[in-house]
Amino acid sequence: MSQRRRRISLGMFLRPTGHHVAAWRHPDAAADAGSNFKHFVSLAQTAERGLFDLLFCADIATLWAGDNDSVSRIGTMARMEPYSLMVGLAAVTRHIGLVCTASTTYDEPFNLARRFATLDIISNGRAGWNLVTSQHEAEAANFGRDEHMPKSQRYRRAREFAEVAQGLWDSFEEGAFLYDKTDGRLFDPAKLHTLDHKGEFFRVRGPLSVPTSPQRYPVMVQAGASDDGRDLAAAMAEIVFAAHNDIESARACYADIKGRAAALGRDPGSVRIMPGFVPFVGRTRAEAQEKFQTLQKLIHPQVGVRMLSHYMGHDLSGYSIDGPLPEIPETHSGLASRTALLTAVARRDGLTIRQLYERVAGGRGHFQAIGSASDIVDIMVEWVETGAADGFNVMPPLFPTALEDFVELVVPELQRRGLHRTRYEGNTLRDHLGLAMPLSRHARRPAPRSG
Amino acid sequence: MSQRRRRISLGMFLRPTGHHVAAWRHPDAAADAGSNFKHFVSLAQTAERGLFDLLFCADIATLWAGDNDSVSRIGTMARMEPYSLMVGLAAVTRHIGLVCTASTTYDEPFNLARRFATLDIISNGRAGWNLVTSQHEAEAANFGRDEHMPKSQRYRRAREFAEVAQGLWDSFEEGAFLYDKTDGRLFDPAKLHTLDHKGEFFRVRGPLSVPTSPQRYPVMVQAGASDDGRDLAAAMAEIVFAAHNDIESARACYADIKGRAAALGRDPGSVRIMPGFVPFVGRTRAEAQEKFQTLQKLIHPQVGVRMLSHYMGHDLSGYSIDGPLPEIPETHSGLASRTALLTAVARRDGLTIRQLYERVAGGRGHFQAIGSASDIVDIMVEWVETGAADGFNVMPPLFPTALEDFVELVVPELQRRGLHRTRYEGNTLRDHLGLAMPLSRHARRPAPRSG
Repeated sequence: MSQRRRRISLGMFLRPTGHHVAAWRHPDAAADAGSNFKHFVSLAQTAERGLFDLLFCADIATLWAGDNDSVSRIGTMARMEPYSLMVGLAAVTRHIGLVCTASTTYDEPFNLARRFATLDIISNGRAGWNLVTSQHEAEAANFGRDEHMPKSQRYRRAREFAEVAQGLWDSFEEGAFLYDKTDGRLFDPAKLHTLDHKGEFFRVRGPLSVPTSPQRYPVMVQAGASDDGRDLAAAMAEIVFAAHNDIESARACYADIKGRAAALGRDPGSVRIMPGFVPFVGRTRAEAQEKFQTLQKLIHPQVGVRMLSHYMGHDLSGYSIDGPLPEIPETHSGLASRTALLTAVARRDGLTIRQLYERVAGGRGHFQAIGSASDIVDIMVEWVETGAADGFNVMPPLFPTALEDFVELVVPELQRRGLHRTRYEGNTLRDHLGLAMPLSRHARRPAPRSG
Repeated sequence: MSQRRRRISLGMFLRPTGHHVAAWRHPDAAADAGSNFKHFVSLAQTAERGLFDLLFCADIATLWAGDNDSVSRIGTMARMEPYSLMVGLAAVTRHIGLVCTASTTYDEPFNLARRFATLDIISNGRAGWNLVTSQHEAEAANFGRDEHMPKSQRYRRAREFAEVAQGLWDSFEEGAFLYDKTDGRLFDPAKLHTLDHKGEFFRVRGPLSVPTSPQRYPVMVQAGASDDGRDLAAAMAEIVFAAHNDIESARACYADIKGRAAALGRDPGSVRIMPGFVPFVGRTRAEAQEKFQTLQKLIHPQVGVRMLSHYMGHDLSGYSIDGPLPEIPETHSGLASRTALLTAVARRDGLTIRQLYERVAGGRGHFQAIGSASDIVDIMVEWVETGAADGFNVMPPLFPTALEDFVELVVPELQRRGLHRTRYEGNTLRDHLGLAMPLSRHARRPAPRSG
C-alpha cells in the first residue's frame, strides 16, 4: 500500500456552534453563528491550516418539526443556506474542498447543475455535492405537498436527477473551448452536445449554460445508509458519509458498500468511506473528560427529552426526568433497532431519562471518542486498518475551540505517524482525495457528433 | 431637493466581456471570462473604487436558442450562474450592492428565499433581487415543459412568489433573537411566525430556516416593461431597470411607473428608476469614437445578421449582407413596434443589412452615448433633470477597459458636479440608494401572536 493511500482522509463537518447539542450555550460559542459569516470564514481557515481535505455542510429544507418553544431552546437551527455559504467560503479559501448537501427532491437538475458547476469554477476545482433525498414531512409542507414522496420514488428521482446533472456537465466535451478571437469562434460547435433527456421524472433539453468546470463534475457524495442509499452510493458516490455508533457496524457497512461497488465493476478504492466522528480531545485524558462534561451539563432538560423522544419515536415529556425510562409502546414511530437498543441500554445500566439522553445527545448518533491526541489517533488508526473507514468526517463538538484542539493536537500526531499531509500537494478536491478526474461521456464512449 | 436626493444612482451591469456584442474579440477582453472568477473580482473591485451603488447581473436559464454554429460565434454566452457569482463577490467586496436576476417561473419560493437571505447575510446587507419571469421556449425545455406559461399566468405566479418570499423573510419578527445562553433561549418563541400560505400557485408552510438578514428583504428590483411588469414594479419594486433607445420613451415610462406607484399609495421617491446606459467614453470625443469603431468592426457578420433576425423576428441569413433590407412579412415573430421602427430607420437612411445591424448591435437595444466625460455627464444630467431617470444601470461596452474609463473619467466629473458620493457613507444597499429599511408585517400590522 503506497504512502499516499495510507493517508486518512479528513472532512470537517460545519455546524454553526458545534456538534454537541448544547454547544451554543458554551462560553466559547458564537450564539449568533447562524447568521455570522465571519465566524464560518474563521472556521474554514482553521480547517485549512489543519490541511483537511474538505469542509462538509449538511442541509434540510425546514427549520425543525416542532413547536416554537422547543425549537427556541434547541440552539442554532436557523442558519445560512449551505450552498451559498460554501460559495462564500470558496472565495476566501485556497485549498480546502467544499462539499455541501443539496436535495434532489425539491429542486430542478438544470438549476442545480448550474450552481455546482459555478461553485467548482469559483473554487477552482474544489466542489463536492452530497446528493440526498428530502425525507421529512416538514420539508414537504414548504413545497406544496401534504406528504413526502415514497422512499423508492425519491431514490429513483435522485438517480435520474444525478444522471441528468452529469449529462448537463458533459455539454461541452474535452477541448471544446477555443477562445479564438481572430476567427470569432469561442468554442468548437461540434463539441457542444444537447442532452435531450426524457425520463420518468425529468425532461431536460440542455445544453448547460455554464462552461465546463475544473473538475467537470463536483465530487459525488452520498450519505444514505438504507439499501436504496447504498445502491446509489455504490453506483456513483466517490465519498460515502455514514453514522455509526461502533466499529462493528462501520466495518459491515464498509464491506457492503465496497462490495456493491466492485459488483458494479468499479474500483473499490474509488469510493472513500468517511464516517462521522465526534472527538473530544485534551492535552490529557482528564482535560478531554472535563471538556465533555462541561458540554453535557449544558444540555437543557427540555432539549434532552425532546431529542430522546425523537430518537425513540415516543413522547417522553410527561415522565419524571430523573425517573426510569417508561415502557415504550409497540406503536412508537422511531427506528425499531434504535429504539430497542436504547431501551436495552437503559434497562441494563439502570439509567434515568436524563442519564439516557446524556448518553446520546453528545454525538447525535455518531461515533464519539474522548481522550488525548494519541488516544484519538489510535482509534482512527484502528478504524482505518481494520476496514471500517478510509477517513472521517470530523464533527468537532464545539466551535471554534474543539476544532482548534483537533488542529493543534490531533493533526500533528497524525502527521508524525505519516497519516496526514504536511502541505496541500494538488489543487482540486479529487487531487486531495487521490481520486481520478472524470472524463465526459463523449470521451468515454465516442459517439457520432451532433452539430 | 436635498443634496442626497440629487445624486445619480449608479449600477454596474456585469457581463463576462462587456455589453458590446463583439467585446469578447477585443484584445483587452478576457475571452475565458465566463469561467474566470478572478476577472469578475477585479471588475467588482473597480466598480467599488468608482463608488457605484450596486453590481447587477442578468440571467436566463438557457445557453441560447439557436444552432451550435451561431452560438459558438456570439461570444461568452456560457457563464457562471449569477446568484453564485454574486455570493462569491460578496465575500471579497465591502460596500457595493449585489443585485441579481432570479426567475420566479422555475424555482420554489422557499429555496429562493433561503438563498437571498443568505446573500444578504454574507454581504452584510447588500443584496438585491431582480424578480423576473422566464419567457423563452428554450428555457421551458430545460424544465420539462413543451412551452412556457402564458404571460398573465407567469406574472400572477411572480407576484404570489414574491409575496411568499416576503412572508418567509418575516418569519422572525423584530427583536426575536435573544441568544440567551444562561436561560437556554436562542430566540423568543412568540416572535417566530409560521406563514401557512395557500395560494393559486404555492402552498408554503414555513417558517424560513434562515435568520433575519440585515436588510430583512433584499432590495426588490423589477425590469419588465410590459403592462404586467409595470404593475408589478409599481406594487413592489424599489429599483426599476428599463431599456430605452431615447429620452422620450424613458420619460414616458418614468412618469407612468411613478404614477402607478403613487396610485397605490406609495411615495414615488421610494422607486428608483435606472435605465440601461451604454457609454463609450474617451479623453476626447475622437478617442471615444475610435473606441466605438474598433468594436463595431469586430462584429462577425454571422452574429450581426443573427441578432438583427432575432430583433425583427424574421430570418435574414439568406439575403446579401451588403444589400438592402428585404420586405419583412407580416408573419414575423418580433415585437411589432421594434420591427416597424427598424424597418423605418433602414428605409429612411437607405441602410444595408450590415449597416442596420451595426446600428443596433452595440447597445443591444439600450441607450448609448459616445463622447468625452463631460458629454456623458451632460447626457446623464439631462435624463435625471427632465424626469427620465433617477440613475443608470451602466453597461460598459468592454471589460475591463470601458469600466476603467468610466471610473477614471466619468466618476470624477460626476463628483465635481456634486452628483456622486466621494465615499460610501452607509452600510447597506438601501443606505446607498436612500431607501427606507422594511419592517416585518408583524411590526407594520400588529396581530395576535401565534405560539
